[in-house]
Amino acid sequence: MSIIYAIDIAGTFAFAISGALVAIKKDFDVFGVIIIAFVTAVGGGMIRDVLINAHPINWIGDINYIWTILSAVLVTFLFKSKIAPLRKTMFLFDTIGISVFTLLGLQKGLNYELHPFVALVMGMVSAVFGGVIRDVLTRRVPLIFKKEIYASACLAGGVVYLLLDQLQLNADLQFILAALVIVTIRTVAVVYELELPKIKNDVLGK
Amino acid sequence: MSIIYAIDIAGTFAFAISGALVAIKKDFDVFGVIIIAFVTAVGGGMIRDVLINAHPINWIGDINYIWTILSAVLVTFLFKSKIAPLRKTMFLFDTIGISVFTLLGLQKGLNYELHPFVALVMGMVSAVFGGVIRDVLTRRVPLIFKKEIYASACLAGGVVYLLLDQLQLNADLQFILAALVIVTIRTVAVVYELELPKIKNDVLGK
Amino acid sequence: MSIIYAIDIAGTFAFAISGALVAIKKDFDVFGVIIIAFVTAVGGGMIRDVLINAHPINWIGDINYIWTILSAVLVTFLFKSKIAPLRKTMFLFDTIGISVFTLLGLQKGLNYELHPFVALVMGMVSAVFGGVIRDVLTRRVPLIFKKEIYASACLAGGVVYLLLDQLQLNADLQFILAALVIVTIRTVAVVYELELPKIKNDVLGK
Repeated sequence: MSIIYAIDIAGTFAFAISGALVAIKKDFDVFGVIIIAFVTAVGGGMIRDVLINAHPINWIGDINYIWTILSAVLVTFLFKSKIAPLRKTMFLFDTIGISVFTLLGLQKGLNYELHPFVALVMGMVSAVFGGVIRDVLTRRVPLIFKKEIYASACLAGGVVYLLLDQLQLNADLQFILAALVIVTIRTVAVVYELELPKIKNDVLGK
Repeated sequence: MSIIYAIDIAGTFAFAISGALVAIKKDFDVFGVIIIAFVTAVGGGMIRDVLINAHPINWIGDINYIWTILSAVLVTFLFKSKIAPLRKTMFLFDTIGISVFTLLGLQKGLNYELHPFVALVMGMVSAVFGGVIRDVLTRRVPLIFKKEIYASACLAGGVVYLLLDQLQLNADLQFILAALVIVTIRTVAVVYELELPKIKNDVLGK
Repeated sequence: MSIIYAIDIAGTFAFAISGALVAIKKDFDVFGVIIIAFVTAVGGGMIRDVLINAHPINWIGDINYIWTILSAVLVTFLFKSKIAPLRKTMFLFDTIGISVFTLLGLQKGLNYELHPFVALVMGMVSAVFGGVIRDVLTRRVPLIFKKEIYASACLAGGVVYLLLDQLQLNADLQFILAALVIVTIRTVAVVYELELPKIKNDVLGK
């Protein structure tokens, strides 16, 4: 499990940087930047743990999350002129992050003996709701509701994970295959600028 | 209890449709529409259950909520040109929904041996906060804070329920009478365009 | 402990008034004003208790919070033309309130055997997140992220409290000294219009 833990921390780091960058753009003070980095990085897992009654929740049970987030804010502060152009690297981190968050959340749901479909929702909550809280607190329309095949990639990877569960593969292999599905779908979607269809608002007015 | 369960599901269905319609108007993608339908329909009960430590929480303990919400989104998608004009039918569903949500939340609070007044608050949280989360995520000023005698109807119905509790009526009768109070107040309020008084902002400036 | 309890109630009262004033300025109806007063006053402690699994949570376990908040709304309603100009008195109440909320939250975290650093975060959550919820629900950019040395004062007082813990002082003395740190820093900051530095947004664009 230590490789997955390492990726979990790397994903947390990437999410925290993405939160910090948004907060800096909004002229938040240092404290505000830390808060937004924090909720972006651990908000999804925190909501998941509260909903499934998994105490101590993620960042309370493992102090490393807090150190990771504070380090990410420091790195953002020191190297922001270098980080901002690194869009591809950030995208890579972020994408690996959501794949790991989704599958760890799903696994945790299954460990808590939730219905597989509910566990799937928990995986998506883990991956997505940190960004939703970030967007609510910084007054942006939550991005994931409009522009990205993001949650859909998580959903597809989660479904693959559940299907592979039937095959009784090696646990690491199962995890890696499902993660690759998420990374691949999201990368292809962004490269080719795919979006989820919208339900045409042809009759409702605004 | 099975009639009340059926009304609970019907209310969930109506709330999910109302959430889906708002999200479609905001040009959310399919995933965004599902999320908003979801939080509108089960958000109030979810907050209630987290606050009173009632695990598994509503939609985790009963998978039917998820199916109901997905069905409601599908129905909205397929028939939106037909649903949008059905304002009176939607209003009816929605009003029955809040009356049931209020009283079920209140009952649950009493079952958890909360102070009756706290249980009353829990009833209102159940009925109202799904809509509040919907409005926060879609960046609308939460409607219920400004325009409708909605929470007040729930409050009145909840108080009636608690008073009838003293009379030791038949449980179904008690439930139905209190629900009628809510439905009646809200209907009268909407038909006659009543609003709660505002505290006049004559000295504070904007 | 009864002096601290009294200050806790006084802080709750002050927070509720501050919430009610914001809601009145936004033209909320009576019910909306009560809700905003409520979440402002007990929202921080509520989030803390949910995160650390401390049930019954603050206002469920002690009905006095609800009465305090309703009284505060009533007072705001009756005397709003008199309260609004009392900025210094309000500031005093509010500042005493955050100092007590911070330290009670921190103590509760330590009692739950959290890592001292996590307990410190819980103290700040208790003091700050009521205001954050208020601002999200009334569609303001959360003030504390931009304009005030507020969270920083709480942080400093919390650190002092933890350091004094090592000295094994009398518990009341420890509490009072740490509270004075918070009150002093915030007062000095407001009088001299100090702000936390911002991370200069010189490369990111808007």
